[in-house]
Amino acid sequence: MKKPSLPRGTRDFSPDTMVKRNYILSTIQAVFENYGYQPLETPALENLNILSGNYGEENDKLLFKILDSGDFLAKVKENPRNFDYRSLTPKISEKGLRYDLTVPFARYVVMNQHDITFPFKRYQIQPVWRADRPQKGRYREFYQCDADIIGTKSLICEAELVRLVEDVFDKLNIQVNIKINSRKILEGIAASLGAEGKEQAFFIAIDKLEKIGEKKVLYELEIAGFNKTSLEKVEEILSITGSNSEKISYLKALLGDIQIANDGLQEIKEVISLSSQLGSSHNYLEFDITLARGLSYYTGVIFEVKAEGVTIGSIGGGGRYDNLTGVFGLEGVSGVGFSFGVDRIFDVMTEMNLLSDSGISITRVLITSFDAELQNHGFVLLNKLRNAGIPSEIFPDVIKLKKQLNYANKKGIPFVVIIGQDEVKKGVYTLKNMISGEQIEADLDALMQAVK
Amino acid sequence: MKKPSLPRGTRDFSPDTMVKRNYILSTIQAVFENYGYQPLETPALENLNILSGNYGEENDKLLFKILDSGDFLAKVKENPRNFDYRSLTPKISEKGLRYDLTVPFARYVVMNQHDITFPFKRYQIQPVWRADRPQKGRYREFYQCDADIIGTKSLICEAELVRLVEDVFDKLNIQVNIKINSRKILEGIAASLGAEGKEQAFFIAIDKLEKIGEKKVLYELEIAGFNKTSLEKVEEILSITGSNSEKISYLKALLGDIQIANDGLQEIKEVISLSSQLGSSHNYLEFDITLARGLSYYTGVIFEVKAEGVTIGSIGGGGRYDNLTGVFGLEGVSGVGFSFGVDRIFDVMTEMNLLSDSGISITRVLITSFDAELQNHGFVLLNKLRNAGIPSEIFPDVIKLKKQLNYANKKGIPFVVIIGQDEVKKGVYTLKNMISGEQIEADLDALMQAVK
Repeated sequence: MKKPSLPRGTRDFSPDTMVKRNYILSTIQAVFENYGYQPLETPALENLNILSGNYGEENDKLLFKILDSGDFLAKVKENPRNFDYRSLTPKISEKGLRYDLTVPFARYVVMNQHDITFPFKRYQIQPVWRADRPQKGRYREFYQCDADIIGTKSLICEAELVRLVEDVFDKLNIQVNIKINSRKILEGIAASLGAEGKEQAFFIAIDKLEKIGEKKVLYELEIAGFNKTSLEKVEEILSITGSNSEKISYLKALLGDIQIANDGLQEIKEVISLSSQLGSSHNYLEFDITLARGLSYYTGVIFEVKAEGVTIGSIGGGGRYDNLTGVFGLEGVSGVGFSFGVDRIFDVMTEMNLLSDSGISITRVLITSFDAELQNHGFVLLNKLRNAGIPSEIFPDVIKLKKQLNYANKKGIPFVVIIGQDEVKKGVYTLKNMISGEQIEADLDALMQAVK
Repeated sequence: MKKPSLPRGTRDFSPDTMVKRNYILSTIQAVFENYGYQPLETPALENLNILSGNYGEENDKLLFKILDSGDFLAKVKENPRNFDYRSLTPKISEKGLRYDLTVPFARYVVMNQHDITFPFKRYQIQPVWRADRPQKGRYREFYQCDADIIGTKSLICEAELVRLVEDVFDKLNIQVNIKINSRKILEGIAASLGAEGKEQAFFIAIDKLEKIGEKKVLYELEIAGFNKTSLEKVEEILSITGSNSEKISYLKALLGDIQIANDGLQEIKEVISLSSQLGSSHNYLEFDITLARGLSYYTGVIFEVKAEGVTIGSIGGGGRYDNLTGVFGLEGVSGVGFSFGVDRIFDVMTEMNLLSDSGISITRVLITSFDAELQNHGFVLLNKLRNAGIPSEIFPDVIKLKKQLNYANKKGIPFVVIIGQDEVKKGVYTLKNMISGEQIEADLDALMQAVK
């Protein structure tokens, strides 16, 4: 006998969880489609030379690698002991599991560039794998849920994504805060500090602000070689407050002579204005100069979303990239995307009691079974219910009615039909409402009406 | 620069393919739910000790194995050269990719046996991975689409699955032939041939009948040690014809003194009768004594489905198993399941022109852009269309109208809205039907009506 177990950091999704997750995913999917994004799926397996080198050295270690099929040692001519595992790996493993949906998307665009009509709007909802240390809320296999538009620099795309994000969370009934910033402004700040060549160090330090606090960020910048005058300027910039337009004005005055900062501020202004024209109420949108986002491929406007009233981290984020496909040989194609964190959204909704346990059963009606002959009457009703599109079951075994009712109860099936000799004689059904406990006699029409 | 490529045997599903696949999958899913099956998802990653030993030695070789993270050689104390790759594998790989949905289902049932209400009806639609030699119609990553009910021996379940299969293919407009048989009848035949202990060899030989023909099957049986009298009896059995009930009567006469064969024949009779009561027309159902199905875990009724009029193999199959969970320590739980072959169904429908290219675009309306000011009017309309649930896009860049029309055309977007100075003055929209080429002036109401 084998003891059944699951790999660490992986999960089964039981039916009650699935129904809730499907509600979240189908809400997002419907909004994606309503905004003109089209579905794409790429394989879980990708060649490792495609995956490696995109996520930074530390993250490359988190790629799951597939052992080559057959005699993988045949290709290793030397004594494997002469290798450390790092140099042996590429000789015995050529494929891995995708780490995100962005790199496969870039690969797809480059491979299909002659068939794709640009601008190309695609959404993709698939699992990804990361050999991270599992912990609460962090899994080794989890879904990503991305929308990207590639092949245009129009800021309408950023504005539409803001609107789309609002739309999704409105539909899910989650109050959110959407932070927006631009890598160009951050670059401008870095430039104003005389930190050319240290931009990435600056982004990474700023990105940690919320996690480690201002003091430690300033300390990290000091270590990275920023001087005292610079640090004072950083402190000043980090402390700005006010409305979005007040912040923009303030920073224009402060950084206006730096072209790239000016461009970034202008873009933020335009995205805010365009999203308003697209129907955004702007109750959610906050220009936040401390938003940096870790990923190195962002070059323009960046976003991040948090839920109000819970202490769960970011539930989505995205931004513009100017050269995602460059690594695969297609230069100069700009795009912008957003990714929803489905697991965290699920956690937020659970914590806020937004995923009710009622209505969990997809099945509406259970027909109980007394004996083989009465089952025939059950079958006739079953066909009628299913033909009317009302998900229904017949209990397959002839056991005590109490046990059959118990089955309906545990599964959350709201209606049970009882067909005994009496009912058959009278040409009616006994219909029990499992929620109210109410029990009525009904003919076919009344029954169909009641269970719809 | 990296040359973008895909691993052999894997595919991208582009938006036009996705729309068609989603149509097939959502049709099957809706029928599953209408019949009371509930969704389940299990992780792609499973421990290899769970996966191995279930599919036969040859198939175990087709498991994709994940290289352990970090220094996988640290655990190998001896010189790896002292191992062949077979004995090294378990030391450097503890996880693999699921090979089917049945074994993960059995693992799930055993791990959650105390929380599950039996009988448990679940469906599961997820990819599986097999390191098979890729060829036309055979992929290394493909979807399976399974429904199982576990925890009851009632033949109503078999009958319901027959009805469900008919229902799915009726909805997909595919003419099918559903073959049905019972492992018990085949065991009875084997017993009548004095072939106790050689049942598996008998099943495997019979299973190849269609592929290699009767002569070669008889030859294989001869090799396996069946004598001349036996072979003559096999020939006789394989050649029976007639209606389902004629075949059952004939075999009852021939095998009636063998208990297990009698049980099997009785079950087939009952499943046919029950499925008829469940609304089956039986135009599709054929009792076929030569159907064996390869998988070793089947113990009762088995099914297989083929499409009429195309030479594509089986597009679905299933059967009853009495001890699927036994390997994980839960004995005596009987179940029955069916699996749809989505890729083959896609191929059948493509070959029969059942997947029309029309209506491929999810987006209904493209709003064109002339200049930034006129775009504002476009935004207003865009919000109204989306709020009404009509998937719509605005072209993000101000480029030549012809190019924007070309975009709509290539993407199969059926309606284009043109908003110029004239239209704004008159308070109307120009609406172009991209299929008929017709162009009308419409106010908001007329436009909404036309594009719905």
